[in-house]
Amino acid sequence: MQGALEPLKDVRNVIAVGSGKGGVGKSTTAVNLALALAAEGGRVGVLDADVYGPSQPRMLGVTGERVGSHDGQTMEPIEAHGVQTVSMGFLVDEERPMIWRGPMVTQAVTQLIFQTNWDDLDYLIVDLPPGTGDTQLTLTQKVPLAGAIIITTPQDIALLDARKGLKMFEKVNVPVLGVIENMSLHVCSHCGHEEPIFGTGGGERLADESGVPLLGQLPLDIDIRCDADGGNPTVVAKPDSAAAQAYRRAARKAAALLAMRRVDRKSVFPRVVVENA
Amino acid sequence: MQGALEPLKDVRNVIAVGSGKGGVGKSTTAVNLALALAAEGGRVGVLDADVYGPSQPRMLGVTGERVGSHDGQTMEPIEAHGVQTVSMGFLVDEERPMIWRGPMVTQAVTQLIFQTNWDDLDYLIVDLPPGTGDTQLTLTQKVPLAGAIIITTPQDIALLDARKGLKMFEKVNVPVLGVIENMSLHVCSHCGHEEPIFGTGGGERLADESGVPLLGQLPLDIDIRCDADGGNPTVVAKPDSAAAQAYRRAARKAAALLAMRRVDRKSVFPRVVVENA
Repeated sequence: MQGALEPLKDVRNVIAVGSGKGGVGKSTTAVNLALALAAEGGRVGVLDADVYGPSQPRMLGVTGERVGSHDGQTMEPIEAHGVQTVSMGFLVDEERPMIWRGPMVTQAVTQLIFQTNWDDLDYLIVDLPPGTGDTQLTLTQKVPLAGAIIITTPQDIALLDARKGLKMFEKVNVPVLGVIENMSLHVCSHCGHEEPIFGTGGGERLADESGVPLLGQLPLDIDIRCDADGGNPTVVAKPDSAAAQAYRRAARKAAALLAMRRVDRKSVFPRVVVENA
Repeated sequence: MQGALEPLKDVRNVIAVGSGKGGVGKSTTAVNLALALAAEGGRVGVLDADVYGPSQPRMLGVTGERVGSHDGQTMEPIEAHGVQTVSMGFLVDEERPMIWRGPMVTQAVTQLIFQTNWDDLDYLIVDLPPGTGDTQLTLTQKVPLAGAIIITTPQDIALLDARKGLKMFEKVNVPVLGVIENMSLHVCSHCGHEEPIFGTGGGERLADESGVPLLGQLPLDIDIRCDADGGNPTVVAKPDSAAAQAYRRAARKAAALLAMRRVDRKSVFPRVVVENA
């Protein structure tokens, strides 16, 4: 399904960040991974593919900005914290509900993907909405993905959905780079007591049974939530914190896996040279 | 949009439970509200309208059950804890991803709604998926809704989406009965320290600005999560707990609002009496 797709112009690796279930911290993880890859020296973009509930404008601290266009056809991404980003949130009012059926969503996602003038990206992180529906299908049918990262919280009911998300990528031959477990443990800011509010060990279980690496585990930490909601994700707000280090380790692992798998699609085709005889 | 719709057979009040955003505890709240209405003496059904990630079979402790049919056309709901329920989870394998575009989702939701033999319900609680897409449109275009309840966590980024969900119901003239704030405060099980992991006051703010009541506030409590994930939601597992009481208060408030607004649609039409002269 993926094999015959044309690579995106000016983008070397498209990485989908998905979960199946909503509210597991997918957008927070996606933006921190993007900033971590940028901190490693990569040129990075974030495509917010959640048409119904875009979060990236707020998480990148650029709420209210509007994308511009030089030619009336294509969009210029917004720059924030050194990464490039597009989102439905730059096209419509933040509070307006998109009461849309699937075909409208497909059209919007297609435009965000193909009509953005990405500026020479090493990595484009795609923040997917929950589910395994129109947006996921559109992306996997139209864009060659270098890999997918699955986010889950540790409890069984989230794992159920995460497993579905993972199986979807396998079905369409997108390599799953690994699993990130989010909201792993809560550490009381007063007494240090650790409480597994959303269960324990689920991310590891999912990674093991699927034969993919566990890229990282992030705690349920009020700071991570507040940093992202405030437009200064932890990787840039507190670069020396344990959480930022965990994001950077996860990003490095994912990048290393990509580098091992990477096939330059252009090298498959013979170069055509027109010689003047 | 809603005015001309035929009432559902054998169902007096259809209540949609929505959120906009995923992972805010919508399914957990929906099932606890349903069980609370049943505890008040109502005859209650739960329609799990989340086709991509059905949670109700697990939350009601009936995973692996399959719906039967007497006539090969309609389905018999599954009974659990005294409530009737249908879900995509009773029709397909729990781990199978539904990789479907919108029209398939619409068809599945329509079948769950119209081909279930509900047995004389006072309340049908509809557990909606995240977003404002096909499922929400199908429901509001095909079923007369008595009201909607919006679930949100307190932080700004969840409120954004909850506000969109609320506006959608207003747009299609479904009365919003109120807002329930979930994961309000975390209370450390060791030292009792209260921490607003997901922020504070958001539910109240949303209710105030929208002119609808705040029906309740539920804490971020590992027990509520474990009870629901284990198939014994708190309202039945720990009926005397503070959380169960909060759910019952919210359910009573919602029911009272419905009773005040209720219009017997049948009374609008003149009764046709055939008299033998």
